[in-house]
Amino acid sequence: MRQKVDINCDLGESYGHYKIGYDEQIMPHITSANIACGFHAGDPNIMAQTVTLAKKYKTAIGAHPGFPDIQGFGRREMKLSSEEVRNLVVYQIGALQAFTKASGMPLQHVKPHGALYNMAMKDALLAKAVVGGVEAVDSKLIVFTQTKSEMAKVAAKAGLRVAFEVFADRAYNSDGSLVSRAMAGSVIEDPKTVTKRAIEMVKERHVVAVDGKTIDLGEVDTICVHGDNLKAVALVRALRKGLEKAGITVTAVGKFV
Amino acid sequence: MRQKVDINCDLGESYGHYKIGYDEQIMPHITSANIACGFHAGDPNIMAQTVTLAKKYKTAIGAHPGFPDIQGFGRREMKLSSEEVRNLVVYQIGALQAFTKASGMPLQHVKPHGALYNMAMKDALLAKAVVGGVEAVDSKLIVFTQTKSEMAKVAAKAGLRVAFEVFADRAYNSDGSLVSRAMAGSVIEDPKTVTKRAIEMVKERHVVAVDGKTIDLGEVDTICVHGDNLKAVALVRALRKGLEKAGITVTAVGKFV
Amino acid sequence: MRQKVDINCDLGESYGHYKIGYDEQIMPHITSANIACGFHAGDPNIMAQTVTLAKKYKTAIGAHPGFPDIQGFGRREMKLSSEEVRNLVVYQIGALQAFTKASGMPLQHVKPHGALYNMAMKDALLAKAVVGGVEAVDSKLIVFTQTKSEMAKVAAKAGLRVAFEVFADRAYNSDGSLVSRAMAGSVIEDPKTVTKRAIEMVKERHVVAVDGKTIDLGEVDTICVHGDNLKAVALVRALRKGLEKAGITVTAVGKFV
Amino acid sequence: MRQKVDINCDLGESYGHYKIGYDEQIMPHITSANIACGFHAGDPNIMAQTVTLAKKYKTAIGAHPGFPDIQGFGRREMKLSSEEVRNLVVYQIGALQAFTKASGMPLQHVKPHGALYNMAMKDALLAKAVVGGVEAVDSKLIVFTQTKSEMAKVAAKAGLRVAFEVFADRAYNSDGSLVSRAMAGSVIEDPKTVTKRAIEMVKERHVVAVDGKTIDLGEVDTICVHGDNLKAVALVRALRKGLEKAGITVTAVGKFV
Repeated sequence: MRQKVDINCDLGESYGHYKIGYDEQIMPHITSANIACGFHAGDPNIMAQTVTLAKKYKTAIGAHPGFPDIQGFGRREMKLSSEEVRNLVVYQIGALQAFTKASGMPLQHVKPHGALYNMAMKDALLAKAVVGGVEAVDSKLIVFTQTKSEMAKVAAKAGLRVAFEVFADRAYNSDGSLVSRAMAGSVIEDPKTVTKRAIEMVKERHVVAVDGKTIDLGEVDTICVHGDNLKAVALVRALRKGLEKAGITVTAVGKFV
Repeated sequence: MRQKVDINCDLGESYGHYKIGYDEQIMPHITSANIACGFHAGDPNIMAQTVTLAKKYKTAIGAHPGFPDIQGFGRREMKLSSEEVRNLVVYQIGALQAFTKASGMPLQHVKPHGALYNMAMKDALLAKAVVGGVEAVDSKLIVFTQTKSEMAKVAAKAGLRVAFEVFADRAYNSDGSLVSRAMAGSVIEDPKTVTKRAIEMVKERHVVAVDGKTIDLGEVDTICVHGDNLKAVALVRALRKGLEKAGITVTAVGKFV
Repeated sequence: MRQKVDINCDLGESYGHYKIGYDEQIMPHITSANIACGFHAGDPNIMAQTVTLAKKYKTAIGAHPGFPDIQGFGRREMKLSSEEVRNLVVYQIGALQAFTKASGMPLQHVKPHGALYNMAMKDALLAKAVVGGVEAVDSKLIVFTQTKSEMAKVAAKAGLRVAFEVFADRAYNSDGSLVSRAMAGSVIEDPKTVTKRAIEMVKERHVVAVDGKTIDLGEVDTICVHGDNLKAVALVRALRKGLEKAGITVTAVGKFV
Repeated sequence: MRQKVDINCDLGESYGHYKIGYDEQIMPHITSANIACGFHAGDPNIMAQTVTLAKKYKTAIGAHPGFPDIQGFGRREMKLSSEEVRNLVVYQIGALQAFTKASGMPLQHVKPHGALYNMAMKDALLAKAVVGGVEAVDSKLIVFTQTKSEMAKVAAKAGLRVAFEVFADRAYNSDGSLVSRAMAGSVIEDPKTVTKRAIEMVKERHVVAVDGKTIDLGEVDTICVHGDNLKAVALVRALRKGLEKAGITVTAVGKFV
């Protein structure tokens, strides 16, 4: 069983005068940064700064494309054609790639954002559009998604590398989906519990769902964390230390997937 | 004296449901297409279509970055910092480059749009910001501008290749600037007159200004034309034929600059 | 049976440099203008011009609010909360009302645009949000919708006046819905046929569906027409003359609903 | 000498998921709220919430229109035509007025934001465009500006009521302008000093500039304060108490101008 895992976080989600996220604080502790590309969040200046920050801490960079909806932060479902989705993925990857190129950094992966991520997990047509966009730009890019999702199937079929992500700080339903944030107990805040779950996820490839059932996670490549508050940042520090103490190598997914 | 010239035109300036320009009609007759990148005009779908169209006619492709102002079509001056200008240039070039890469086409040049073009011609600081953005992405890109402009000086100093553009269908003031469109006679519509002027511009490197004075144009690499009405398209066909008849090779600027 | 009908058309859907619609040509022939409010189309300048044009021809004015999506022309479904929908309706009505007030014109009605119109016809919750927005600003505003729709029910329940609209140039399915534009024969272009259908709709309150079945239209208050091409404009002229010749008074819906 | 003064603050400047400003904390302590209208900040939902909050604390409401530039927070100069400026002012006032109407609150005033405010202070043509927009919607609205500005002259000439504003927490140059925020000592943070200055401003109509010269402020109707951090909120509480202790009535400007 592989003893390696990546830690990924959404970053660069500020916009102009509006600041969100403790990017400076979280960057040193993660191994893959999903950088917003200006459609749901981020702008050219924020992107430049975030790429510079990632370079400073040698964090691998991924594009984090979303729906064109700053006001809704890319969390509102939009019904776009496959053509439209493919092209907005191409556009956003390209925009970020110009900044990574300018910094001499490679682009490692693509992780769709918010409603686009969720919809593409379930909708094969949409997944094909997203994967088509990724392939069009660079077929060496790794796609982040959850195991058993349409995205995972479509990306694998297209011959793209896939990184399977898990959520150590979120409760799971027994069908493998995440318990809605609206439910009590959906988010786990205790660093020890989260770390314990993460170690189990990486080493055993399973997690215990809210109904007590043990779920097989298939492959586990990257743990998704958050950096939007200081408590979350502290949790990530603890999580990383805990993983390393348990003999797991925390490293960018591009090195082992 | 070199007997070669490029013909460039702004294209891909439609937006969503809104159509502008006879892109299909003009593309076969030009050698360099300046494609809008989504900030002043264009969107990911229009960009994809326009790149495909350029590929069909083997027209060389350039990025046409503008201010973030669809409503003003990038023609309204905005006072941005050097950092902001550099980054919006990087972003827009990158976005277009993803589409050219997806089509297996190279990116030949960058021509700023509207207010950004005009301001960078006169303002050395702004010119530096634009050139900095181009360099950051790819120092092999050719910069389009007018002779004696700040852009020309800054780009040359940075070691970038520069293509000097002329306007065969526009009257010139004796200081080398264009007569304002608000003035009668500022735009020349007769295909024969335009062709005659263009030939003189390419072969003699000069043009006669409105006050009768002959102006030295320095170098002449590319002629800017328009495709926003069918008359303009007919003019370009006539112009190209006239140039070729006069022994001038009409070819993409990347082949000779 | 009432022998009066209104003719309504979407107008003011240009945006900045982008022109759509023959507003000047169509305005004299209609009695109610649905003016875009800047979210799916239109901008403050276009709104000012369109209100001035409506005033010139004494055409009644309505707000035409849409989803915040210029690129998609408000035709792409977006999943917004009731709160968001209510507020975007309030906002857009208010913005237009400032221009009508400045012109000394009253605001007669509200007709949602595109995806918002279609979704609110079927979704009671969304219809409530739209109606809630209208009521919040002015409970004397008339709501345009189709008979038997959720919008019609919700608006009536709220005590708002409703204008039922029909589409004389569109084929109907036997369930009262419009035949998709993707189907052959969905749009009727012959002025005589359209006029004949319109007269029947107004006088008999029914229309013959594509399968030959006669559909009861309930009430018929306003006929929706289009002004996006010159043929459409000619059709509207013919339609209006035909209606008047048949003894039907063509007048703004606010005068009789 | 009048012993009354208003305290105004910019509010409702959040945008979608992005939060700025301690609106809840500051609202009880001010008498006039300048609410962003969706062009430089704010969106329909934020506007609805901010109007509700103002109603709760009986704070008078003003429109705070800005340039169409969320990314630049309305602080970047844009060169628009008079027509464009007039219309964007009309639009934004109307949009906010729909929310105040829905809440049964009157609209008291208009205070342009950021670059629009600063430019209209110095540029008579721009000031005319702004004032023209205000007048077009409602000539009873009060215009906020600084004494001796072009805005003040133009608004007075148009017969509009003007509220002259001062900045108790900012250092003044001897020509009456504010010391640039880039200079040390430009912002005064000590509540006692700010309160002392404010009392002097209201009672004596003057302030001591950085070079020691005493400047005549002409009329003083409203003191501009900030609510973007908790220290600023505390300062406003202290300021209001200090003014009242000094026998000055703190009340909305609409009651005495």
